[in-house]
Amino acid sequence: MNSELRAFFERVRPAIDETLNELLPSETASPDRIHQAMRYSTLNGGKRIRPCLCVAAFAGYREEWKPILCVASSVEMIHSYSLIHDDLPAMDDDDFRRGKPSCHKQFGEAVAILAGDALLTLAFEVLGRSKDFPADRLMQVISILGRAAGTRGGMIAGQVLDLEAEVTPASASQLETIHRSKTGALIGASVWIGAYLGGASESDLENIRIYCDRIGLAFQVIDDILDATDGSNRDEGKATYPALHGLEKSREIAHDLMKGARSALSPLGERARILLAFCDYLESRTH
Amino acid sequence: MNSELRAFFERVRPAIDETLNELLPSETASPDRIHQAMRYSTLNGGKRIRPCLCVAAFAGYREEWKPILCVASSVEMIHSYSLIHDDLPAMDDDDFRRGKPSCHKQFGEAVAILAGDALLTLAFEVLGRSKDFPADRLMQVISILGRAAGTRGGMIAGQVLDLEAEVTPASASQLETIHRSKTGALIGASVWIGAYLGGASESDLENIRIYCDRIGLAFQVIDDILDATDGSNRDEGKATYPALHGLEKSREIAHDLMKGARSALSPLGERARILLAFCDYLESRTH
Repeated sequence: MNSELRAFFERVRPAIDETLNELLPSETASPDRIHQAMRYSTLNGGKRIRPCLCVAAFAGYREEWKPILCVASSVEMIHSYSLIHDDLPAMDDDDFRRGKPSCHKQFGEAVAILAGDALLTLAFEVLGRSKDFPADRLMQVISILGRAAGTRGGMIAGQVLDLEAEVTPASASQLETIHRSKTGALIGASVWIGAYLGGASESDLENIRIYCDRIGLAFQVIDDILDATDGSNRDEGKATYPALHGLEKSREIAHDLMKGARSALSPLGERARILLAFCDYLESRTH
Repeated sequence: MNSELRAFFERVRPAIDETLNELLPSETASPDRIHQAMRYSTLNGGKRIRPCLCVAAFAGYREEWKPILCVASSVEMIHSYSLIHDDLPAMDDDDFRRGKPSCHKQFGEAVAILAGDALLTLAFEVLGRSKDFPADRLMQVISILGRAAGTRGGMIAGQVLDLEAEVTPASASQLETIHRSKTGALIGASVWIGAYLGGASESDLENIRIYCDRIGLAFQVIDDILDATDGSNRDEGKATYPALHGLEKSREIAHDLMKGARSALSPLGERARILLAFCDYLESRTH
């Protein structure tokens, strides 16, 4: 991470954490267990990549990035809900998340299911109550986020296809679809929404859309590469880019995606400095 | 059900079913299993009480009720998601719903969890894309629905408290809170939203709010009474109004609630004809 990108993330992350802390009901509000579970799984030291990218895109168009914090935090709530539900016994059955017991291990399965539901619901409620942007713009954000989180090319589609791939191994093109929908769609939406609410022009938004498409996929391809090279064997037996294409070819695919992402940003000049630095950061992780 | 109310429901129900059929992705759209599960659990011959009440409230202010169909259907999607998740093994563990295998029995637990998630997500996406009403009004609807479905006095709060009551039996006042939040909040929101989008005055909306409060609770109290008198023993050992107050007192409570609901409607005159007929229908079920 170059020093500018690091400085940016170090300023934005605490602001996101603080916003989430304010938006989430208190641990003592009744019914307290559900609120404890929501906070446990959301205020957990996450990297906040999605909201930080949302703020980064917004900051290309606006000096003051405080107005985007609630919207960016609602994206993080959707991400947090998806992790809680992915970890459930019926899904990926993970007992740990970020080194701590996963939500259902800590609070039981029923509360974990409901905490996920509640984070998803609260994300939309927060957007519905927002007065930070014109209502028609926020409606567009709600629609885009709903689609990115949904079953037509969105996060839920990715999770269903991923579960199916455990039975019938995914082909290369199926794996691309899984990565694009399970991870890429929400990351892409975060960036796009930031630029859109910042007031980017139609032509900037179109270039941002291409950037989103490329980094959304690259993000997960690079995650696959890291898993293959860190010796964790976490993905053993699972379809991954290195498993299907080999490590070298996977790095090449990631590199080509980042090249496409960078070139889409070039007409944006200075506005895209942080988004560009994020490309460098992502790519540096593959080496 | 008097003939006018019956005629109204018989006209609205098919329109809701048709709207849901159009809004839900097709059974063949990829990933098909999730879409099949969403449709299986939503297009299942439900009574459509919530959307019909939403349309009824709207129709008090507008001749043409077609514009409210998408909003009313999104309320039904939220109801449908809640039933799928309530039936899960970790929750109420019900194998059947309306005489057919529940979603997780038919499609497996993972797909059922995701189908619930997807219906909740789609409900908000549909509202976000709507052009049927001014954006600021729809934003208010999204916020109200999010709250009614959420953890602060909403549906999820009710479900958490209901699960807790299985361990520590609920007191009378706790049971009232459970019924109000688990059932009452979403029913109340459906009616209020219909009147609000129809263009009801502030004073009508305040009266409607009182009506919603009363029928929301009464709906579940009457459900308890029916379960106690139909000999099904479905609620055996569970805190219910008849179990805590006795049958006669429960009928009296329901009657008082309906009296409050009716008197709140009286300033609305003709506009409230269907909502008033719904009170008669609900109360007739207790005898």
